[in-house]
Amino acid sequence: MNKDGLVLTISCPDQHGLVAKISSFIAERGGNLDELHQFADGRAKRFFARFAIDTSALESSPADFALDFSNLAEEIGAQWEWREFPSLVRTAILVTRTDHCLHDILWRVKTGELPIEVTSIIGNRTDCQQIAETAGIPFHHVDMADDKEAGFREIDTLLKEQKVELTVLARFMQILPDWFCQEYSGKVINIHHSFLPAFIGANPYLQAYERGVKLIGATCHYVTSDLDAGPIITQEVQPVEHFHSPADLVRLGRDCERRALSKGIRYHVYDRTIIDQNRAIVFPD
Amino acid sequence: MNKDGLVLTISCPDQHGLVAKISSFIAERGGNLDELHQFADGRAKRFFARFAIDTSALESSPADFALDFSNLAEEIGAQWEWREFPSLVRTAILVTRTDHCLHDILWRVKTGELPIEVTSIIGNRTDCQQIAETAGIPFHHVDMADDKEAGFREIDTLLKEQKVELTVLARFMQILPDWFCQEYSGKVINIHHSFLPAFIGANPYLQAYERGVKLIGATCHYVTSDLDAGPIITQEVQPVEHFHSPADLVRLGRDCERRALSKGIRYHVYDRTIIDQNRAIVFPD
Amino acid sequence: MNKDGLVLTISCPDQHGLVAKISSFIAERGGNLDELHQFADGRAKRFFARFAIDTSALESSPADFALDFSNLAEEIGAQWEWREFPSLVRTAILVTRTDHCLHDILWRVKTGELPIEVTSIIGNRTDCQQIAETAGIPFHHVDMADDKEAGFREIDTLLKEQKVELTVLARFMQILPDWFCQEYSGKVINIHHSFLPAFIGANPYLQAYERGVKLIGATCHYVTSDLDAGPIITQEVQPVEHFHSPADLVRLGRDCERRALSKGIRYHVYDRTIIDQNRAIVFPD
Amino acid sequence: MNKDGLVLTISCPDQHGLVAKISSFIAERGGNLDELHQFADGRAKRFFARFAIDTSALESSPADFALDFSNLAEEIGAQWEWREFPSLVRTAILVTRTDHCLHDILWRVKTGELPIEVTSIIGNRTDCQQIAETAGIPFHHVDMADDKEAGFREIDTLLKEQKVELTVLARFMQILPDWFCQEYSGKVINIHHSFLPAFIGANPYLQAYERGVKLIGATCHYVTSDLDAGPIITQEVQPVEHFHSPADLVRLGRDCERRALSKGIRYHVYDRTIIDQNRAIVFPD
Repeated sequence: MNKDGLVLTISCPDQHGLVAKISSFIAERGGNLDELHQFADGRAKRFFARFAIDTSALESSPADFALDFSNLAEEIGAQWEWREFPSLVRTAILVTRTDHCLHDILWRVKTGELPIEVTSIIGNRTDCQQIAETAGIPFHHVDMADDKEAGFREIDTLLKEQKVELTVLARFMQILPDWFCQEYSGKVINIHHSFLPAFIGANPYLQAYERGVKLIGATCHYVTSDLDAGPIITQEVQPVEHFHSPADLVRLGRDCERRALSKGIRYHVYDRTIIDQNRAIVFPD
Repeated sequence: MNKDGLVLTISCPDQHGLVAKISSFIAERGGNLDELHQFADGRAKRFFARFAIDTSALESSPADFALDFSNLAEEIGAQWEWREFPSLVRTAILVTRTDHCLHDILWRVKTGELPIEVTSIIGNRTDCQQIAETAGIPFHHVDMADDKEAGFREIDTLLKEQKVELTVLARFMQILPDWFCQEYSGKVINIHHSFLPAFIGANPYLQAYERGVKLIGATCHYVTSDLDAGPIITQEVQPVEHFHSPADLVRLGRDCERRALSKGIRYHVYDRTIIDQNRAIVFPD
Repeated sequence: MNKDGLVLTISCPDQHGLVAKISSFIAERGGNLDELHQFADGRAKRFFARFAIDTSALESSPADFALDFSNLAEEIGAQWEWREFPSLVRTAILVTRTDHCLHDILWRVKTGELPIEVTSIIGNRTDCQQIAETAGIPFHHVDMADDKEAGFREIDTLLKEQKVELTVLARFMQILPDWFCQEYSGKVINIHHSFLPAFIGANPYLQAYERGVKLIGATCHYVTSDLDAGPIITQEVQPVEHFHSPADLVRLGRDCERRALSKGIRYHVYDRTIIDQNRAIVFPD
Repeated sequence: MNKDGLVLTISCPDQHGLVAKISSFIAERGGNLDELHQFADGRAKRFFARFAIDTSALESSPADFALDFSNLAEEIGAQWEWREFPSLVRTAILVTRTDHCLHDILWRVKTGELPIEVTSIIGNRTDCQQIAETAGIPFHHVDMADDKEAGFREIDTLLKEQKVELTVLARFMQILPDWFCQEYSGKVINIHHSFLPAFIGANPYLQAYERGVKLIGATCHYVTSDLDAGPIITQEVQPVEHFHSPADLVRLGRDCERRALSKGIRYHVYDRTIIDQNRAIVFPD
């Protein structure tokens, strides 16, 4: 259960006494651990951890606590992040035509499952405009038919203007340019409608049908320049049979896609993921 | 529930009144349907079916019935097979080192889940010899280190001598030559330790680890000349997390492998599979 | 894949030559089978089947065909139903407070996954009124606080006025009176938020938490007078761990509930279910 | 991945700075954390943790380390256990007739998945004697037909003589007397062939069939005096359909049972479980 308070996520070279150092640091300042996950990767000699701290008895403000922690972080050579909860992550959703993932995200936002604020819905087509309007969320139509590059520059501007922290590709059917992937590295989540690494590219359900697989799936992953090869956050699966047509696979796959994407977003915005090169450490809730 | 009696499996061009014709043929001769599965493939205009017939009131012998049916089969242009149950399919199991799939098959044979008679266990190494001896099954060591081709000719001879109807590759780590695949087309079942078509080739668990997938699996399929591309009978899946090492994936994967392989064999020997080019129609029980 | 045409569902005492008779009847009138499912229940000596018939070459109108079939049905002692597709089943959705199942149904209606026409949303509270209005569906508030019996009579009147064919309890938190269950026998589908038969009654997630189960689930079933004991159409499952609070179980359970309910409705409206006393025969798609 | 070293499992009242204290204690003595799992139960104000410690640089012997830790444990009011790995847990397996769980355990012992030493197989019937002999494990036949109480006293004596640390009920079809449950509290693991709490008691698969469920399962749990109500370690699930007979459910259930039981044993012997009243905290691997 996610509680209010402070979350620290840390990755650093593995070394003696790390948990002792960090947890002592927290305890000495009046913090209590609600949750602690750690992973010592013996192969890469790296340490990853997530500390969820009850701040009700903290002796300083969370911001001062974090400032203070930066000294320890430097000492142990850590990349780290902190976030205070409750917190709404400013999120833009990019779409093309299909709306099932968008719908699911909006529903979960309303239910309180996803602590995000949807700053805008951006479409390279207008199919999802109506949904945005019903939900009272600004919709931006960025046409990409003629000049893809200009389109992405426009999106880039929008994201910056709106101080977007997370961009979600909710079945956005455009390949992102390299510069965009690098600019927003670790901040863009995509849903791919297959079990990566199988069936990369267009129309994976037709590929799955033609190959005669008995399981289809969907993969939620961070976007990197290498198309469909970014760190995987979560994957969902669905058994299928010989009588399922490609259209059936699309239908059954929708459920995998929306489940995987919503779960991936949730893990990200609760700081339950840490990217480690092309893999993602995930501490599920 | 599989019952004793006669099983007809049929594939033919789709045409008007097929079920009526075949089921009338059966009814007129005193057969009762215990089970009927059919699949009319609208894309390929093909018809596939499996008729499980209670023969207790059949007016002729099953063999005469089948002979008689060949006329109808010709009329409708059908490829077809029949088998009388109870029936033990003569099965050879090919192994290399690991024994978990072999163990599982032998256990299920004993339990009565797999109606097969294991004619022999053939290993290109001797690691599984002890298991064969304990089970009272002939073990043949066919060395392949020096002359692979000679090895397969030896296996071919063994299979023919023993009138083997089904060959199971239970983690047999040798690539079959083309002539062997063609000779035994539709009669060789393999277990591949990944979700085909992902991670084809050697060491798929290490590939899966390095790609950072969150689901691993195993695929049971018919063997064709095109390595790991034969018709898929069944696939099994297992969630994994970042903390699972390649060795953990191997451990967790073993359960998928033995489950998928045993299930695939069961479907095959109960004539619940029909091969349709590179796909398998499967009527599960 | 569900195709347009005629669907016959049949249940009758098992007897010789049933499939032959029915499929010949269909073939003789120009019908082609798109799909055929049958189940001969050896224990109860009952026969159940679903024939999906391509009517494009049918020699009579579907209505005449059905009229004609009633003679054969009488001869074999069958209870049977027929429906022509495409067809929108007139459906009322009953709700109380929570809206996740309602949302999911409405989304799937829009997507085309559920061939129903939602005639009305009926709530014993007004929490879902806004959703109904946004979707352009009439909302009826039927207060039950003071007089439950009067409330159900009012619902009964609404269902009759609107010629409702299917009533869906989408987390409707009122126990239906006996007379209502009998009046609409086989026409009311409920979602229960546990693996029936475990955790019958109120607050099953708290019960599940207290029992310390490692799997939770949801059950979609037909409603009968015996509360939560009606024929089960489908069940969904979700692994949980010790750290999941009752609130987490509620959250995770929502996904099971909406999936199970939508799937159950789909099977029902495509005539893929046949009720057999307290069990449901289901031919999934 | 389970590594060699020392494992501490702890449960105590939740209090400020617990992780800091314990991890500092470990670090100060040269221990490195391979793995750390903790769970702060906010409802019960209890703290549970498992520390897996790399002892290669430990400044004292593991035994001295543990002795030393007992002071800290007292200070924080902890119940705790420690075990040095590699370690083989002395395990007795109790059986009646069916052997699939027994087979699976023995296979996993051989594979190295279960770090146990099977001290003996004890049967109230002799059906499994042959398997024990083949495996080279002493078999004790304890007849219970006439005097159940005497039978359990005999088992009690055997367990004590053989210094058994864990008793596994591998489809042992006798109800344990209260005194036995109390004597071996937390040291007896059972497999129940249903989703507890559904279908308690005899013949759960028949109950499941008659209820018409669409999912069956198996539950691995600690044994307490309250039959089938002990802390659940793990549960496995299997979809079923209307055509599955009770015998099919038994067949399909076997796979759930052996999977659940072997997994439960594994978690127990790697000290990945902590019993908390009628619930089990489980830190899976």
